[in-house]
Amino acid sequence: MEGLLAPLSEADATIQSMEDASPAKWHAAHTTWFWETFLLRDHLPDYRLYDEAFPFLFNSYYETEGERIARGNRGLVTRPTLADVLEWRAHVNAAMEPLLDDERCLDLIELGLAHEQQHIELLLTDIKHAFSKNPLGPAMWDRPGPAAPAQADGWIEHPGGIARVGHQSEGFGFDNEGPAHRTLLEPFAMSRRLVTNGEWDQFIADGGYGDHRLWLSDAWDWLNRCNITAPLYWRGEGAGGEHFTHAGWQERDPDAPVSHISYFEADAFASWAGCRLPTEFEWEAIARGQDAPETGQRFDASAGNQLDAAVPPTPVGTAELFGDVWQFTRSAYLPYPRFQPAEGAVGEYNGKFMAGQWVLKGASCATVRGHSRASYRNFFYPQQRWQFTGLRLAKDI
Amino acid sequence: MEGLLAPLSEADATIQSMEDASPAKWHAAHTTWFWETFLLRDHLPDYRLYDEAFPFLFNSYYETEGERIARGNRGLVTRPTLADVLEWRAHVNAAMEPLLDDERCLDLIELGLAHEQQHIELLLTDIKHAFSKNPLGPAMWDRPGPAAPAQADGWIEHPGGIARVGHQSEGFGFDNEGPAHRTLLEPFAMSRRLVTNGEWDQFIADGGYGDHRLWLSDAWDWLNRCNITAPLYWRGEGAGGEHFTHAGWQERDPDAPVSHISYFEADAFASWAGCRLPTEFEWEAIARGQDAPETGQRFDASAGNQLDAAVPPTPVGTAELFGDVWQFTRSAYLPYPRFQPAEGAVGEYNGKFMAGQWVLKGASCATVRGHSRASYRNFFYPQQRWQFTGLRLAKDI
Amino acid sequence: MEGLLAPLSEADATIQSMEDASPAKWHAAHTTWFWETFLLRDHLPDYRLYDEAFPFLFNSYYETEGERIARGNRGLVTRPTLADVLEWRAHVNAAMEPLLDDERCLDLIELGLAHEQQHIELLLTDIKHAFSKNPLGPAMWDRPGPAAPAQADGWIEHPGGIARVGHQSEGFGFDNEGPAHRTLLEPFAMSRRLVTNGEWDQFIADGGYGDHRLWLSDAWDWLNRCNITAPLYWRGEGAGGEHFTHAGWQERDPDAPVSHISYFEADAFASWAGCRLPTEFEWEAIARGQDAPETGQRFDASAGNQLDAAVPPTPVGTAELFGDVWQFTRSAYLPYPRFQPAEGAVGEYNGKFMAGQWVLKGASCATVRGHSRASYRNFFYPQQRWQFTGLRLAKDI
Amino acid sequence: MEGLLAPLSEADATIQSMEDASPAKWHAAHTTWFWETFLLRDHLPDYRLYDEAFPFLFNSYYETEGERIARGNRGLVTRPTLADVLEWRAHVNAAMEPLLDDERCLDLIELGLAHEQQHIELLLTDIKHAFSKNPLGPAMWDRPGPAAPAQADGWIEHPGGIARVGHQSEGFGFDNEGPAHRTLLEPFAMSRRLVTNGEWDQFIADGGYGDHRLWLSDAWDWLNRCNITAPLYWRGEGAGGEHFTHAGWQERDPDAPVSHISYFEADAFASWAGCRLPTEFEWEAIARGQDAPETGQRFDASAGNQLDAAVPPTPVGTAELFGDVWQFTRSAYLPYPRFQPAEGAVGEYNGKFMAGQWVLKGASCATVRGHSRASYRNFFYPQQRWQFTGLRLAKDI
Repeated sequence: MEGLLAPLSEADATIQSMEDASPAKWHAAHTTWFWETFLLRDHLPDYRLYDEAFPFLFNSYYETEGERIARGNRGLVTRPTLADVLEWRAHVNAAMEPLLDDERCLDLIELGLAHEQQHIELLLTDIKHAFSKNPLGPAMWDRPGPAAPAQADGWIEHPGGIARVGHQSEGFGFDNEGPAHRTLLEPFAMSRRLVTNGEWDQFIADGGYGDHRLWLSDAWDWLNRCNITAPLYWRGEGAGGEHFTHAGWQERDPDAPVSHISYFEADAFASWAGCRLPTEFEWEAIARGQDAPETGQRFDASAGNQLDAAVPPTPVGTAELFGDVWQFTRSAYLPYPRFQPAEGAVGEYNGKFMAGQWVLKGASCATVRGHSRASYRNFFYPQQRWQFTGLRLAKDI
Repeated sequence: MEGLLAPLSEADATIQSMEDASPAKWHAAHTTWFWETFLLRDHLPDYRLYDEAFPFLFNSYYETEGERIARGNRGLVTRPTLADVLEWRAHVNAAMEPLLDDERCLDLIELGLAHEQQHIELLLTDIKHAFSKNPLGPAMWDRPGPAAPAQADGWIEHPGGIARVGHQSEGFGFDNEGPAHRTLLEPFAMSRRLVTNGEWDQFIADGGYGDHRLWLSDAWDWLNRCNITAPLYWRGEGAGGEHFTHAGWQERDPDAPVSHISYFEADAFASWAGCRLPTEFEWEAIARGQDAPETGQRFDASAGNQLDAAVPPTPVGTAELFGDVWQFTRSAYLPYPRFQPAEGAVGEYNGKFMAGQWVLKGASCATVRGHSRASYRNFFYPQQRWQFTGLRLAKDI
Repeated sequence: MEGLLAPLSEADATIQSMEDASPAKWHAAHTTWFWETFLLRDHLPDYRLYDEAFPFLFNSYYETEGERIARGNRGLVTRPTLADVLEWRAHVNAAMEPLLDDERCLDLIELGLAHEQQHIELLLTDIKHAFSKNPLGPAMWDRPGPAAPAQADGWIEHPGGIARVGHQSEGFGFDNEGPAHRTLLEPFAMSRRLVTNGEWDQFIADGGYGDHRLWLSDAWDWLNRCNITAPLYWRGEGAGGEHFTHAGWQERDPDAPVSHISYFEADAFASWAGCRLPTEFEWEAIARGQDAPETGQRFDASAGNQLDAAVPPTPVGTAELFGDVWQFTRSAYLPYPRFQPAEGAVGEYNGKFMAGQWVLKGASCATVRGHSRASYRNFFYPQQRWQFTGLRLAKDI
Repeated sequence: MEGLLAPLSEADATIQSMEDASPAKWHAAHTTWFWETFLLRDHLPDYRLYDEAFPFLFNSYYETEGERIARGNRGLVTRPTLADVLEWRAHVNAAMEPLLDDERCLDLIELGLAHEQQHIELLLTDIKHAFSKNPLGPAMWDRPGPAAPAQADGWIEHPGGIARVGHQSEGFGFDNEGPAHRTLLEPFAMSRRLVTNGEWDQFIADGGYGDHRLWLSDAWDWLNRCNITAPLYWRGEGAGGEHFTHAGWQERDPDAPVSHISYFEADAFASWAGCRLPTEFEWEAIARGQDAPETGQRFDASAGNQLDAAVPPTPVGTAELFGDVWQFTRSAYLPYPRFQPAEGAVGEYNGKFMAGQWVLKGASCATVRGHSRASYRNFFYPQQRWQFTGLRLAKDI
């Protein structure tokens, strides 16, 4: 995460551009808080908190861990400084040493690593949002991402039947991915490729945003109340239109996957296209049937954690299911049969959000490579758009 | 519906106590509009609208049918008067005669009848809400409903397996109940009886409303923001506590099913009880396995449409699955596989609401007898409480 | 007041169309509460309240008199019925008999009568607002008001100097009109006539609502937030444009005084016209120099309290200062030097509103004849428009 | 202003803690924009804007100067950086050289200097607010301000009569201070000293915040809605209670003038004390009768613009009328007779705010020494508290 902070000023790292987003510095601090709280404090004898005031500042939503700063006030915390936070991170990282071999901590450490990866993605999407609010359109990278190749059309067919879904390997998985269980699928087909910017331009040109028949009732209210006429970060229509990226304002690539759309928009587009969104189980069933080549566009912050080595998060489209954009499903985010939240405070990680949100599958260009799998369940509210969200069509056959 | 309007003053029938509720007169007018619009106007040659201004006033949410009065302003329509509306109803009812034998109209007529039945229930719950806002606590009935017998505990077990769900008979069903399809169930058990007021008192006494571990994140926000500490219409705690009914303020019966709770509360209670809510398919599978004796508490407005002949809507608890209170499931209200909304404007009836709501099964003491079935899917937002909503526990076995 | 209720249905009299307005029935009840509370209860030995529940329902804003129904819920009180309220009024009126000769009650009785007159005006303006929200545009009178004669231009000049202002006669005056005191005026002139609908049409045609230079900062925010482009109740522009009246939608008379404007609009118009609003003291100084002929347009509900005998409130314009519309001044509503609120609960009548409001002088076509005087101070917030409010220009000389 | 920015981090200088407050960097940039726009652009031939994007970012409220960033988004402008802004300031300062001797620019330059001084005060109060939102309570100074000497009681009497008020010297004055004019005063007395923290503690102990009789109606709503029980920045009651200062949390000095109160609170306190607030003219009349010794507590940022040389803004109380805290008057902020706003865009400086605000007189401990005079009119909304606002009692004699 330190690499991502390098190009940011103290101010860039501190501001909060909306309640859904958090400051970059906050992400660095919150993930450190996670290690200090759930590993060091709970499992390292005699560990003393680095600063008694930090839990109030950097606890996100764990009610079990007590009171915390109002979510909308995260951007007012100019002290501790970014340097202070990085020093704390170094301190906590060093203190973790003795626990790394501790069998009893293995699950929590894996959780902590996954948590860190999630906040890398959030940091990337949150700072993109913050920069987008500045009329100067600052850039985090000084070069745009790669161009998108045109993708061939085509459908992957599935005969239906009983599929086994949910986390079922030896490796790490969040509690919400399990238990593994059987589900019954009807025959269906899912598109080989993601919906593109070019197709979205057609949707707009065809009056998609003005045709109530395509929209859910809540969606139509939202669209009219918020005056929504295009994906987030778009300006200008059709060919030559631009969108805001980590490299500032750039011309939209018609062949690139559309991104920064809400569930409401994804659903309306699918209706317009005479299709529908897949369910989370349909998506997973297809994914389990594939050799996952790991070629999809994701975020690479390896190479010594150097940002220079990474390309800016950019959806380009590949033949793979994972990467580019998170893909909306028509599945509500609900517990699987016999679901049990994890023990203790970390039980608040996923389970308490199982109301009013939708499941997204895959991974995005801002997801750290390795951080996803067929059973992975991302989830957002139907109006949220600041993540790299897109869609892949499905249909009954 | 005319019988229900009899005990109401012109003013009672006109006011709107919140945006979710509608005036009693409006229900009478809107259902008339439904017949006039979708049957008379569309299918009776040369029919002329009774009043050109009425569609604007009494269309509920059919975008296809054009602009309409803002939902929150329904209570400002003092003209036409209740008598005017009843005259219109009589006119429309008479005009319907020639269509009653028209084969092509059969489906729409069945829909219109079901629509009418739904608005009878809404009228009952809306006027209850309106009266509850008056500090004088007016009553619509001058006698309380029947007392509740104690219900025996016990669980109905189900071995799991593939169940066929959704509307599958010859009779009427809404579009959202179909298509019939198969679903895979794990073994489970569902309680033989509904959760009671007495049990809810224990939940409160045990600090249920103050224990964040029991609540979904959105629920906890709602509860704190709205200062929720008991079901709607409750005042006073434990024995001797009262609740508001169609017969005014009455002592709560500890053996009666709890009612007027939100999904958020139902879910928290189930967690507190170490159980969970059933899915809509589990509930339906049990219902299909039962002889539906039609003994459950529902609303009887037959007997010449005389209100005197009917008891006030009162949950009492029976051995039957249907009646007393609508029962929350943990299923989000989503389309069934291969779901297609009905053709035309009536396609807006159900499909466009498939976001953010939860499925409820059964029927309530305010549901007209006959208006429900195993495949019936009622749906509400997770914070809504003004309907007769309750819960029946389930668990994995 | 009973005459005004005659043409209203039970529902008309019960609804509340916005928080600023109150139901007609509520006005009848509140004024009765005033007599019962401040006269009967406090001064008639052994008087027992007619109904213990009524004070909660019908106290307006007297904190000293305890809790009361939320202002926005006044329209939900369908019981007591209008007949119940009128019976209460009759009871209270009869009970007042012994107090009418009581010297000690004289001041409170005069206050009660003035209070009654104010609520007659409010009833008229509130029901106008309520009817305006009904797309059918119901009318309270079946004939429009009189036509407006063209008024001659001209200015009344005043040489400035020390003027004595504030209530200084033997007759009744509200506490906020005193004490009488001296004020220093610079030379000025005030228009002989009110600004007309025709002039307002010119203001609109000249882009008045779109020119930020004419508007106060708060006004510009309000105008943009609320999308204000014309006075309240206007539809259609220029010649042939209509406005909503007590006789339904009527063509606007270009010679009639403009009405239903806010302070913000009055101030902007005056700027556009190269003039300004008078201060309350300038207006009063002119009024004191005039023979008040009592010819101005005001409300006459005498003639046996028969509404038939009264013309609908209609601004027409006369040579008199009083009548037609309340006239905005550029004076904030503040206490006069040595102001003391009245003793007891009635001290809340005027004094506690001395913040954020503006003084209006004169009287309107809905003001009961006799209810005003040179020292009278009406007051409203700068964005309020549902009263018969207009303006008369002033300028420095 | 540069000296004030020295102790701030890039992040401190960038954040915005509420809509009323602006970032420190923004103050530096906005004042630079003022010079560049109204002096350089308008009066220096061939001057080219330093950056075409800056006017959008740093115009405050001048509609004449076009669109600008939404007020609530000022804290999202991380670029340009503070260094960028300071470089712009240096550039603009240098470019101003040729205009300094230009007679035609004299008035605008004086306005620019006064504007700069106002923003120094705002910077100080805004950063105080921002720091107060951080649970760590950061300090801008590492030492508290001076202690307050006890002040002797006493009243300054004034016999009343005609006073000449408003700006009447050769020196600079804002447009809203004029024209000078006569006003008529009744005999009155004004306290020799400011109300203190200790007295405010008595007001609280006496239940002042809970007694509706002391509060204006709007004040009572505000107090209950916002849960106001003490001045802004107070924690803990009575002796030993603390308040937040530029030197962090400090014990309150009972002898120091109370500060950070609203008009609503000042008015309620005066009522509790059996007194009233002075009018702006009473205050000015007293001030004009005094030798202004310039000993009052104000902000000194001279000494090479070094913050070290300045004590943190701290009300201490002196015999002088000017300094310590701005003093609420009971005068609404309205135009003086024959007031004319300045020509051009700077005419928006004061005139358009003449609605809904109250006049404050004197100066505060954060006001730059020299920046005030007897005719000076500061103005705020009645609920605003983040300035150093206090009160001085008056009474009729």
